[in-house]
Amino acid sequence: MAKELTMDKIVSLCKRRGFIFPACEIYGGFANAYSYGPYGVELKNNIKKLWWKKFVQDRPDIVGIDGPILLHPKLWEASGHVGGFNDAMVDCKKCKKRFRADHIVEDATGKDMEGDLAGMSKVLAEGKIKCPNCGASDWTEARTFNMMFKTEMNGITDEEGKSIPVYLRPETAGAIFVDFKNVLDSMRVKVPFGIAQIGKAFRNEIVAGNFIFRLREFEQMEIEYFISPEAKWEPLFEQWLKWQEEFALEIGARKENISRYEHPKEKLSHYSKKTIDTMYNFPFGIKELYGIAHRSDFDLTQHAKFSGQKLEYLDPETGKRYVPHVLEPTFGVDRSVLVALLAAYDEEATGEETRTVMKFPKSIAPIKAAVFPLLKNKPELVEKAKEIFDTLKTSFVCEFDDNGNIGKRYRRQDEIGTPYCVTVDFETLEDKAVTVRDRDTMKQERVKIEELEKYLSEKLK
Amino acid sequence: MAKELTMDKIVSLCKRRGFIFPACEIYGGFANAYSYGPYGVELKNNIKKLWWKKFVQDRPDIVGIDGPILLHPKLWEASGHVGGFNDAMVDCKKCKKRFRADHIVEDATGKDMEGDLAGMSKVLAEGKIKCPNCGASDWTEARTFNMMFKTEMNGITDEEGKSIPVYLRPETAGAIFVDFKNVLDSMRVKVPFGIAQIGKAFRNEIVAGNFIFRLREFEQMEIEYFISPEAKWEPLFEQWLKWQEEFALEIGARKENISRYEHPKEKLSHYSKKTIDTMYNFPFGIKELYGIAHRSDFDLTQHAKFSGQKLEYLDPETGKRYVPHVLEPTFGVDRSVLVALLAAYDEEATGEETRTVMKFPKSIAPIKAAVFPLLKNKPELVEKAKEIFDTLKTSFVCEFDDNGNIGKRYRRQDEIGTPYCVTVDFETLEDKAVTVRDRDTMKQERVKIEELEKYLSEKLK
Repeated sequence: MAKELTMDKIVSLCKRRGFIFPACEIYGGFANAYSYGPYGVELKNNIKKLWWKKFVQDRPDIVGIDGPILLHPKLWEASGHVGGFNDAMVDCKKCKKRFRADHIVEDATGKDMEGDLAGMSKVLAEGKIKCPNCGASDWTEARTFNMMFKTEMNGITDEEGKSIPVYLRPETAGAIFVDFKNVLDSMRVKVPFGIAQIGKAFRNEIVAGNFIFRLREFEQMEIEYFISPEAKWEPLFEQWLKWQEEFALEIGARKENISRYEHPKEKLSHYSKKTIDTMYNFPFGIKELYGIAHRSDFDLTQHAKFSGQKLEYLDPETGKRYVPHVLEPTFGVDRSVLVALLAAYDEEATGEETRTVMKFPKSIAPIKAAVFPLLKNKPELVEKAKEIFDTLKTSFVCEFDDNGNIGKRYRRQDEIGTPYCVTVDFETLEDKAVTVRDRDTMKQERVKIEELEKYLSEKLK
Repeated sequence: MAKELTMDKIVSLCKRRGFIFPACEIYGGFANAYSYGPYGVELKNNIKKLWWKKFVQDRPDIVGIDGPILLHPKLWEASGHVGGFNDAMVDCKKCKKRFRADHIVEDATGKDMEGDLAGMSKVLAEGKIKCPNCGASDWTEARTFNMMFKTEMNGITDEEGKSIPVYLRPETAGAIFVDFKNVLDSMRVKVPFGIAQIGKAFRNEIVAGNFIFRLREFEQMEIEYFISPEAKWEPLFEQWLKWQEEFALEIGARKENISRYEHPKEKLSHYSKKTIDTMYNFPFGIKELYGIAHRSDFDLTQHAKFSGQKLEYLDPETGKRYVPHVLEPTFGVDRSVLVALLAAYDEEATGEETRTVMKFPKSIAPIKAAVFPLLKNKPELVEKAKEIFDTLKTSFVCEFDDNGNIGKRYRRQDEIGTPYCVTVDFETLEDKAVTVRDRDTMKQERVKIEELEKYLSEKLK
């Protein structure tokens, strides 16, 4: 394993090898955002597929949906986001840079003053806290700032025809709750059951950063798992925590880097019975990876109130109607990708050189097998290699590569994390076999072409 | 086939069977938007997967990316969207409803006055054209309206620290062009090659409608296919058109419903050499399904100009540098889903009843096999059926159902479009076999449980 795994190493490999690029880099970058490159999008899609299979397709008790990003503004009033989804911000009057007021104060004084606007303004006005950007001590008042992105939409107006704000959803959960009734009416779900969704969410963070850890535009995998208010929820809550950790392990997370953080009772919303985050030891500190909250019947009750619709479940056994309670396990897609990248990264001394290799679990590796002709200027080898590529690609995501010498190609595939490299050489034309090289052991094996697909299928299982 | 396939039939089946719900229906709906339900999201994902496999994973010449929705505002100046992505709108002063000015005028007079604002205002002022909503003839001036959704983002300001508009991308293509250089630097692509992307785009249409045909928030599958300016592009353009039609056929489109529409030269942008739409015969008329445009080097040249970066390709054979030209095939995801639904819909007389069945191609059917115990109150049948479900689900997306009688379950699976239903009955416990019923022929076959997975695999190929 690498002596010291820094974010710089990951960020640079990601750019060099086509995993993740700084967004709009030709325009000087944009808002600490990123773009998934060719291998990044495969890696991300594999993680999403793994999640969807595990939590939706393989489970008879969970169904999926895919709702819009732009939703009815009333939904966000009901959920409390219009009123309460705020951070405290402060601007440096000199350099015009904006900061999280509570972060600036806490970094300088060690005091957590989150929520105390007047208190923070007072501390800032004392002139002792310096702007991290320009060093001045000339601050605006601390003020709250709603983190939802706002836009306007044709046709969405008040009674006078004036536009009213439409928000980019700050979490995917909202789209699930408003579809609760339609899912209940069309599907054969019985409590306990879950509704899952993968999709983008947007938060106008004052500061984004740490590569793809904190993005303003990010992707979530969320489940609302509906339970009876009378059910013993504690064991299920614990079970969900374990499923979340299990998923982290499946994408490669190292067990020793996973921990739990339970939100103290006094910091919980009034309706939440318990919230626990699955934490991960990132190079920049131990931070939230996933979370799970018991949200009681708060959301369904609020949406029922604001919409005037009943959002109840009729128990077919007892004939009783009730508003289900809900457990909400949330998984960040981008953070999962980051964990997969960090956990896979390895540097190994091989003779005089150091080999960088991404040891992804095979299930999420962007490319499963690379096919090479030993030499690119030998048409008979190239042709054979292309033939093999065409056969294998129906079963796995493959790559054909005839650039540079074979050593360079191995090095490249190691950095992409490709589990197997298949080389067609001169002997191939005689013995109808190829050399298969294993990413992790670097061992090479001779495999008959006619057995290759089966051989790789077994290995990739 | 159904005598008359109306949109009402599709919309109602979609809601009843959990394919597609009106968005935020409990809040009275929202902006003609829709939410994909449990079967809709599987169908949509299958279509996206099929596309990605065909055009990205199976092709050595195309790589994928996944860029942000919120991108650098300068990008949309370079692309011409800030200046020119406009529709003409007009408001009824009486009922405050908003319309496309050119549509209102054309519907009333038969004249296409698109682009002629003064002319349209004059015609509207004559007082002869009535508001389709309230019947009044009291119009505002016709004025242009930029169709990009606008928002503001922390940190995105002008030199004085004032927020500047950030746009929700009106097409996915923009994110591809700004990543061109990074793809070139990190991947081993050689002209001709393509960059593909699937993702959401947003257009603040004045009027949305026809179910999921015209949405303000929609999903695209786009490719920028880069070619040499000296290459003969006509055969490749034709080839891409055929690939687009081929894809439509693969998701079930009927050949007789597909046609082509070539944009007349005088309506093309100055840089475009040719634009052809693949049209589909929808119940509401023959409308655009997919499109392909030859955009010359317009985009790369504009982004080079606005970013100050060179966006050129170095030909490794000739050593020459040039700005590639581009063919842009675009596929709508939601329109593909709509075509798949329309083409699959069938009503068949079966004895005295009419059977509604969704004859999706097996590759995109949301559920591949449903597993039933004959009776739900016989634990030995239920247990056996669950066991079979657990085995099959590792290979295919399956559903377990023990609700109602077997006839109702078949009817339900027919409407979901499930190719195979597997029933566990009393005999199963004796002969270790199950009844497999085919969606299309309704024929039933007895299959040994130990051969079931292989049997279905073969059938589903």
